[in-house]
Amino acid sequence: MRLTRFILVHPSHAGNVGAAARSLKVMGFHDLVLVSPRWPDVLEHDEAVAMASGATDVLARARTVPTLAEALEGITWVCATAMTPRDFGPRTEAPRAHFATVCAEPPDIAFVFGGERFGLSNDDVYRCHVCLSIPTAPGYGSLNLAQAVQLIAYEWRLALGGFEVQPRTAPASPADARAVQGLLDHWAEVLVAIGYLDPGAPKKLMPRLNQALNRAQVTAEEVHILRGIARAITASRETD
Amino acid sequence: MRLTRFILVHPSHAGNVGAAARSLKVMGFHDLVLVSPRWPDVLEHDEAVAMASGATDVLARARTVPTLAEALEGITWVCATAMTPRDFGPRTEAPRAHFATVCAEPPDIAFVFGGERFGLSNDDVYRCHVCLSIPTAPGYGSLNLAQAVQLIAYEWRLALGGFEVQPRTAPASPADARAVQGLLDHWAEVLVAIGYLDPGAPKKLMPRLNQALNRAQVTAEEVHILRGIARAITASRETD
Repeated sequence: MRLTRFILVHPSHAGNVGAAARSLKVMGFHDLVLVSPRWPDVLEHDEAVAMASGATDVLARARTVPTLAEALEGITWVCATAMTPRDFGPRTEAPRAHFATVCAEPPDIAFVFGGERFGLSNDDVYRCHVCLSIPTAPGYGSLNLAQAVQLIAYEWRLALGGFEVQPRTAPASPADARAVQGLLDHWAEVLVAIGYLDPGAPKKLMPRLNQALNRAQVTAEEVHILRGIARAITASRETD
Repeated sequence: MRLTRFILVHPSHAGNVGAAARSLKVMGFHDLVLVSPRWPDVLEHDEAVAMASGATDVLARARTVPTLAEALEGITWVCATAMTPRDFGPRTEAPRAHFATVCAEPPDIAFVFGGERFGLSNDDVYRCHVCLSIPTAPGYGSLNLAQAVQLIAYEWRLALGGFEVQPRTAPASPADARAVQGLLDHWAEVLVAIGYLDPGAPKKLMPRLNQALNRAQVTAEEVHILRGIARAITASRETD
């Protein structure tokens, strides 16, 4: 099992720390480290606990260290989520493209996020192997810290193989074409009876309904309902 | 230009509404509709404005309507972000897989998110064409509302073609192999002089350094620095 660590450098809002904990737990990660947070006891703040929701175990296990170097123990691949410094620094890549290159042999990886106010310092970025840049709208690229953590955790989890999406209902199986034709014949009878379909000049009414039913991929149960409606129309006319 | 609309049904936390506005703007979307929010004036709450950060224009343009039906005007493809009801309902798909099927001809699409407390009602889900399920860790699948908005906005933007990631520095160009050999020859000289390399039994020291430099893909500037260090060693010995 390789390490996946999320490191928040100088976070200043307790709510973001809690939301970050929830964001990584929901993607199956649990290793959160804070570097010199603005409030040393931020992990116990009410707002952090509230925003963590069911992820208070991640907060409880999170560590606080004074420097980024200490947060990087055991990590072999360090990803800054930042712009690269203007002078030089690691290459800048989009998360999805970068993860495609490293996930074949996943390293012990850390994602390093700067604080809400000043981002990462150049000195911190120089310690990293790559700058991950989440592709954002030109002119408004400012993600909230916890949203950035969520996106990176999601992309990395998918790169590692992802989780299954479990439908709760069996997929509906479409009615076979013969059942659909039976329905259309039944409706044609009723539509003639109520004067909507002229058997002498039927135009394209039935083929149009056929196409709508085909696109809908109606199920056997829906065919049953639609034939029930046809029967009810006939019955209501007979009792009048 | 096709519509992309984000619809929050019965949102109860002003902070989430603001964070949602920011989450969609950062991905280049601007159409936010609230259905019957818990606080009718939630768009003006201080916390909504604070969490929207630079996206207050999205809040200012957001509409509040009483029913989901009214929010769906102009929309031809409605995606619930919810579990499908237990009895029946639209099929459940992961966002990335689903978007791959619809983005060839993008529809006028809406993403419908339930409130923080009760999610979407079955009646609301029955109005939708698909249930999008963000793949999450078994046993802890609870995303914060604004995080869910962020992930869907991100995936849909990428499905539509995405934004460019702009590196701020030119990519560093690696030194050519001849320059690396020149560096190694220079270092070999110095390493012999300081007694670290035995020219009679050099073992594999120089090839090992060669491999490390190759993996690093050192740049011309770095070769220059490393030769400067070699020169400084020589100079410091001559002045002793």
